[in-house]
Amino acid sequence: MIAGFEFPILLAEIARPHLGVLEQPFAGIGKNDGAGFDHVTAGREVERELGSPDVVIYNASARARGAFVDLAPAEVAQAIAVSAFGGFLVAQQAVQRMLPNKHGAILFTGASASVKGYPQSSSFAMGKFALRGLAQSMARELSPQGIHIAHFVIDGGIRSAARVEPADKPDSMLDPDAIALSYWNVLQQPRSAWTWELELRPWVEKF
Amino acid sequence: MIAGFEFPILLAEIARPHLGVLEQPFAGIGKNDGAGFDHVTAGREVERELGSPDVVIYNASARARGAFVDLAPAEVAQAIAVSAFGGFLVAQQAVQRMLPNKHGAILFTGASASVKGYPQSSSFAMGKFALRGLAQSMARELSPQGIHIAHFVIDGGIRSAARVEPADKPDSMLDPDAIALSYWNVLQQPRSAWTWELELRPWVEKF
Amino acid sequence: MIAGFEFPILLAEIARPHLGVLEQPFAGIGKNDGAGFDHVTAGREVERELGSPDVVIYNASARARGAFVDLAPAEVAQAIAVSAFGGFLVAQQAVQRMLPNKHGAILFTGASASVKGYPQSSSFAMGKFALRGLAQSMARELSPQGIHIAHFVIDGGIRSAARVEPADKPDSMLDPDAIALSYWNVLQQPRSAWTWELELRPWVEKF
Amino acid sequence: MIAGFEFPILLAEIARPHLGVLEQPFAGIGKNDGAGFDHVTAGREVERELGSPDVVIYNASARARGAFVDLAPAEVAQAIAVSAFGGFLVAQQAVQRMLPNKHGAILFTGASASVKGYPQSSSFAMGKFALRGLAQSMARELSPQGIHIAHFVIDGGIRSAARVEPADKPDSMLDPDAIALSYWNVLQQPRSAWTWELELRPWVEKF
Repeated sequence: MIAGFEFPILLAEIARPHLGVLEQPFAGIGKNDGAGFDHVTAGREVERELGSPDVVIYNASARARGAFVDLAPAEVAQAIAVSAFGGFLVAQQAVQRMLPNKHGAILFTGASASVKGYPQSSSFAMGKFALRGLAQSMARELSPQGIHIAHFVIDGGIRSAARVEPADKPDSMLDPDAIALSYWNVLQQPRSAWTWELELRPWVEKF
Repeated sequence: MIAGFEFPILLAEIARPHLGVLEQPFAGIGKNDGAGFDHVTAGREVERELGSPDVVIYNASARARGAFVDLAPAEVAQAIAVSAFGGFLVAQQAVQRMLPNKHGAILFTGASASVKGYPQSSSFAMGKFALRGLAQSMARELSPQGIHIAHFVIDGGIRSAARVEPADKPDSMLDPDAIALSYWNVLQQPRSAWTWELELRPWVEKF
Repeated sequence: MIAGFEFPILLAEIARPHLGVLEQPFAGIGKNDGAGFDHVTAGREVERELGSPDVVIYNASARARGAFVDLAPAEVAQAIAVSAFGGFLVAQQAVQRMLPNKHGAILFTGASASVKGYPQSSSFAMGKFALRGLAQSMARELSPQGIHIAHFVIDGGIRSAARVEPADKPDSMLDPDAIALSYWNVLQQPRSAWTWELELRPWVEKF
Repeated sequence: MIAGFEFPILLAEIARPHLGVLEQPFAGIGKNDGAGFDHVTAGREVERELGSPDVVIYNASARARGAFVDLAPAEVAQAIAVSAFGGFLVAQQAVQRMLPNKHGAILFTGASASVKGYPQSSSFAMGKFALRGLAQSMARELSPQGIHIAHFVIDGGIRSAARVEPADKPDSMLDPDAIALSYWNVLQQPRSAWTWELELRPWVEKF
């Protein structure tokens, strides 16, 4: 067992409700009412939830389902907002707190849709491609300032209480602890050999 | 000279002000006030501007400039809205009109930022990555229904009245007519050999 | 109809037997017997076949088939030699003749295997990935010297006298003339907007 | 400290001279003299060096330097042979020994040249692109059979006794132990969440 293993999982737990909070300001942005995004409030929420965080993991995503022509534009906008813009908001608040220490890490959770635009999945592709673009741009800008940025392409179903693989297909779904182990290992990388992206998929997953 | 050469350029001209119209509803989306996006109005605008189009080119983009920590969230949201979500809105309206004929083409204009997230350029990367994800997903879904989807990675400065390359660096900026020629050629491709993506850059451009 | 349309096809016809000639010297390389590769002979062959060419298309490829563990190493070496090293030999001879004029074009024919390593296809992936690496390196080095380098990812079956798609799946195989049209169009690109890579696939091809 | 950390380094040490042995048969392949590649001998060498290995790391690479037109074809062939074909030979011998146990791992060391063809670097691009194609094809074919295949993109200079970064640019070169840590971590991944590729670069490396 590796000590601290449960750390990223814990963070994800913290982050999930927290992101619910941060999604709200997005609605406000659309108003263009001059007041703009209340980043003071948002920052206060980040601080309340995460303190002055040294590690932040952004997992949130959303999508609109169905044929391209039938998608509700408002749901597509919401999908982009949650999957990508929320990542920007959280990351910016976190980086503002990490930069004075020249230390910290921000991990983004992607999907196979981050690198491949599947049919009937345009809203998910837009959000996940955008999040990857954000992560790559941040990696180039912020790594030399001591902030480790990494993007994980999760390709496959994630095992949960509600969803388990069939007995004759062992380990055909990603074990959350196995995901967390790789997140943890990336966090432990010495800065002379940082990873900005890696893929994780079950051994039997087609790709 | 190739006949019809000026066609795509013309379309881009038409599209530009049109997109100005379509950007407005995005603001409305943020309200989440139950009224949602007025796609009836938007479709009426598309029809007024483009009729029942057989070819649509989406060029619009926007970005917020500066260090990552200093970006105004509202400007980042606007950048994503113009570069990517606007592309979705226009494309959906267009595809709804093309599908009954099982014929048509939608061309998206990307940039080097579509495939590479540069430092100090996260909002542009988010928008352009997202647009590419949209185009790729649409290509997989809609090509078999007769709609040709293509994404152009424009890498380099575009020559214009306001900006011309120095005399000792001939053709170091993209000539708009040269861009239009490749757009036109993609439109002319027989459906047995369609391109979904190609890059265009000056011969001397570093990449 | 576009004048000169048949040009690239013709060139490919010329190149095919020619490459048969150029494959032989590769055997000689392995000997490491001090005599080395007889590039004088090879260059003479290029000149005899192509004169002082302004355009060269490299189509040749080979592969070993079967499960990874069963592949005959000699066939794998041959596959790499034909698909990739032959491309280097032909391209180098051609560039040596083009550089004095600061003008010319070399087009490489890739496959879906150029960008995706399929199972039971390692030798083809090695050869085609290598050819793409060659093309990309040449594009960066030689474009600024006036030589246009392009790599075509052909994804799908190519229609021929021996192999035609079923009547209920029209245009589900690439028409050689449609391929040639895109090769031709790339050759016609003004140098302010060159393409180094594009994909070609039938409208109904899964990817 | 993580137990076993030194393991991959040790293996690389073993592999290096061993690969020298395996490079020789490649010369024989070229002869096409009917005798073919003596894989029995090669397998015997693998076994003598590695026993029945559960983990194999392939590091070997070679390149020809200089302008494209000046490259000696024999050196280019040698570069491809060492960087890519040698990887095939070693991997095939190893997989033949791993498959009966449905267990094992093969790690390939790539470079930035594995994913980007730099100017004046075509032979290195050919070899490294080919090795990546091999690794990706093997990953798709052999992962479902229990063999973990991974490809590491090492982007940056590697610190050694002979080459150390300047004091004012700390950790600007990859520490071999830091590389080994990530190799080790990939080896430890549970099969429900395997990585087939990851990049490693110093925090301050431009990319």
